[in-house]
Amino acid sequence: MPAVMRDGGRLVVLGGVAAGMSAASRARRMRPDIEIVVFEKGPDVSYGSCLLPYFISDLIPSRDDVVRYDADFFRRERQIDVRLNTEATAIDPRRRQVTYRAPDGGTGTLGYDALVIATGATAYKPPIPGIDVPGVFTLRTLNDGERLKDALMSGGIEDAVIVGAGYIGLEMADALAHREVNVTVIEMLPTVLSTYDPDMSALIERELLDQGVVLRKGTKVNGFEPADGRDSVGYVVAGGQRIRTDLALVSAGIRPASTLAREAGLELGLSGAIRVDARQITSESTILAAGDCCEAPHVVTGRPCWIPLGTTANKQGKIAGENAVGGSARFGGVAGTNATKIFDLEAAQTGLTQHTAELDGYRPASVTITSTSRARVYPGASPLHVKLVFQPETGRLLGGQLVGREGAATRIDSIATALHAKMTVHELADIDMSYAPPFSPVWDPVIMAASQAQKKVTG
Amino acid sequence: MPAVMRDGGRLVVLGGVAAGMSAASRARRMRPDIEIVVFEKGPDVSYGSCLLPYFISDLIPSRDDVVRYDADFFRRERQIDVRLNTEATAIDPRRRQVTYRAPDGGTGTLGYDALVIATGATAYKPPIPGIDVPGVFTLRTLNDGERLKDALMSGGIEDAVIVGAGYIGLEMADALAHREVNVTVIEMLPTVLSTYDPDMSALIERELLDQGVVLRKGTKVNGFEPADGRDSVGYVVAGGQRIRTDLALVSAGIRPASTLAREAGLELGLSGAIRVDARQITSESTILAAGDCCEAPHVVTGRPCWIPLGTTANKQGKIAGENAVGGSARFGGVAGTNATKIFDLEAAQTGLTQHTAELDGYRPASVTITSTSRARVYPGASPLHVKLVFQPETGRLLGGQLVGREGAATRIDSIATALHAKMTVHELADIDMSYAPPFSPVWDPVIMAASQAQKKVTG
Repeated sequence: MPAVMRDGGRLVVLGGVAAGMSAASRARRMRPDIEIVVFEKGPDVSYGSCLLPYFISDLIPSRDDVVRYDADFFRRERQIDVRLNTEATAIDPRRRQVTYRAPDGGTGTLGYDALVIATGATAYKPPIPGIDVPGVFTLRTLNDGERLKDALMSGGIEDAVIVGAGYIGLEMADALAHREVNVTVIEMLPTVLSTYDPDMSALIERELLDQGVVLRKGTKVNGFEPADGRDSVGYVVAGGQRIRTDLALVSAGIRPASTLAREAGLELGLSGAIRVDARQITSESTILAAGDCCEAPHVVTGRPCWIPLGTTANKQGKIAGENAVGGSARFGGVAGTNATKIFDLEAAQTGLTQHTAELDGYRPASVTITSTSRARVYPGASPLHVKLVFQPETGRLLGGQLVGREGAATRIDSIATALHAKMTVHELADIDMSYAPPFSPVWDPVIMAASQAQKKVTG
Repeated sequence: MPAVMRDGGRLVVLGGVAAGMSAASRARRMRPDIEIVVFEKGPDVSYGSCLLPYFISDLIPSRDDVVRYDADFFRRERQIDVRLNTEATAIDPRRRQVTYRAPDGGTGTLGYDALVIATGATAYKPPIPGIDVPGVFTLRTLNDGERLKDALMSGGIEDAVIVGAGYIGLEMADALAHREVNVTVIEMLPTVLSTYDPDMSALIERELLDQGVVLRKGTKVNGFEPADGRDSVGYVVAGGQRIRTDLALVSAGIRPASTLAREAGLELGLSGAIRVDARQITSESTILAAGDCCEAPHVVTGRPCWIPLGTTANKQGKIAGENAVGGSARFGGVAGTNATKIFDLEAAQTGLTQHTAELDGYRPASVTITSTSRARVYPGASPLHVKLVFQPETGRLLGGQLVGREGAATRIDSIATALHAKMTVHELADIDMSYAPPFSPVWDPVIMAASQAQKKVTG
């Protein structure tokens, strides 16, 4: 049951990055009359986290290009009372009141008619000895990005170790190599980019090796040690070796920033993220949540899941903002669609992998085909690998993965669309997709994969 | 009611390009026991017509790269009796017999148990005086392409006039410019690429002008005249002017090659193409048709239409081949999805335009937005224009058009998928599409267009 916002009431939003500022902006558009206050614990709002690797590589040189709109824009143009460096420390749902720490260190309380929690996620810092040694970084906020870039700009960084071979780790391997830093990536698991099935992530792994990245898989990091005679990091101890380094980046995943919500008695999901309904309302009817701190319904499984992505944060933020002030918008669910560029390869995925489908209780089948990004004989054609995961009995599509030098990232969206429509591989194979030699073979790689999948449908 | 093929029966296929060879190959895979004969009136089978502009520009230098498989391949590997330079001249449905002209000029007859007509389409030659003057070309077959390329290779071609600003005309303008020929394009209609709405085709027009193409719209060609003292073309008379040229290409559209079918008493559609059911069966139960010579059900209107495309030909061919020998496959319909590259621009469309929707009796609404192909601040981002056409009362999506320097061609397939799923713009706006700065803005241009369209839905 969505909140009803009284005339001149107050909306408080916790967090001012993607979901938070989307929520505040949407609420303002709906309701010019109300007061809107955003608490952001950091010094910046509304920046693009996904831009950080390119900011660090200097492909995007200016900080101003990472920040979409600054706090003054929101204050001036949207009459949103943005309070930077201000951290909410407690929520009292009964009194409808937030306690916060102000920039000067003092504390205050502020009442609300509706509250949107958009506290995001925080970088996970594993309990490794020496993780707080200077020169060991994590990368989550713009502030983190600036510190890391400053370290690189100050010179003398020849070698870097990245702990964790997820998206951020691998995008940063690319970014650092772009700056001519020698990169070693250490991954605990036996594969890189483990949100992909191993046959697909193996393609990414080959690209990393081709680009000169040193990769140590199945390797645990035991400690970070200062350089001889200095206080900043000089060694990473891993797999029984001491690896010389000038800089370390720990990208060991993120965790939902749901502590405040939990302490306020809000229901969390199994993932530890805040549970919300399709209107982004939490277990308290006047408190909504959006973005990386909360769950979302999965369009394939129909169950709540936690797949933190900027696209979802923006959409959920809009919906939470609308519903916080009396609207009744519904979120369409996530397929977990994402794309990344690792050196010269594009990788993209949507829905379930073979592995996650099995974890979710399906008994999936899959096909993997290799086609080309353009007509085979058109100059510049390169291999494009497509994997489809589906239910063998019904043919229902469960997910897809694409890897190639071009045409993977945008093609994933067709598969995502098919997932939202709950298509079978038969229906996907029947889609009238475009063909022109510079852009695809006559049978689009996605259609070709779906045609192969059809042959494995038993029902 | 699909044909039942007796043991050791004979399938005859008329036409050996996309649909014909797909049909023959599929039939062979289903039925190793039967006899399969293909009559192809030209000297080649199974070539990629869409590759011809690139063969002529020399981006694809070798003829062997345009021909997927040659006749010997089909004879040897698939036991298909391919008869080149052999043209069917009559079909007798009652006697189940085809009359043909053999390469030596003699005639023969051949009985069939099932017949697949895959005669394709022919270039339309408007009745313009002088159209048969040497040096005035059309481009439809590989043979046409070779003749045109030979003319270019023989040297002395500095200026060319292209009559007709459809796909082929514009792709050929690009191809000839690539060979450093000065190109004038003459179009009778007031816009180029008139399968697009004028706001979108205006973007293509600007690109043509930027690339130095001379464009004369709204101009009729009155005649072709030989060069002074020679027998080959030297002038194109149009709009009251005599335009000097060394070569002319007439690309004034194509017509379904349905004469044989009509003369045999088969039902044709309003388009003049052969009417078929979802199993590719014509009004005669033992005769099937596939490809550019026949109609297809449109996924948006549900009505038969004639949108000749290579992708459709291949799919319909497979289905006709399967059903000719006892199968019961159904064709999934066409959305008319297509893409083209005109100099540095990609253009792609699917479903209905504003204009065709109106012709089809809808009262459509539309939105056109301009976004970027990558995150705005990512190097290389370029404008991407998206138009969506929809029903304002229900929000149902009717079609989409995309134009931009990159990311248009593959993105159209998401919209095509949404059309097959009969989505509304609300549903399209909810799709979880991928985001990564090198490939899209955080709100994908398609999602942004759908969000704008939502605001115009009245129901």
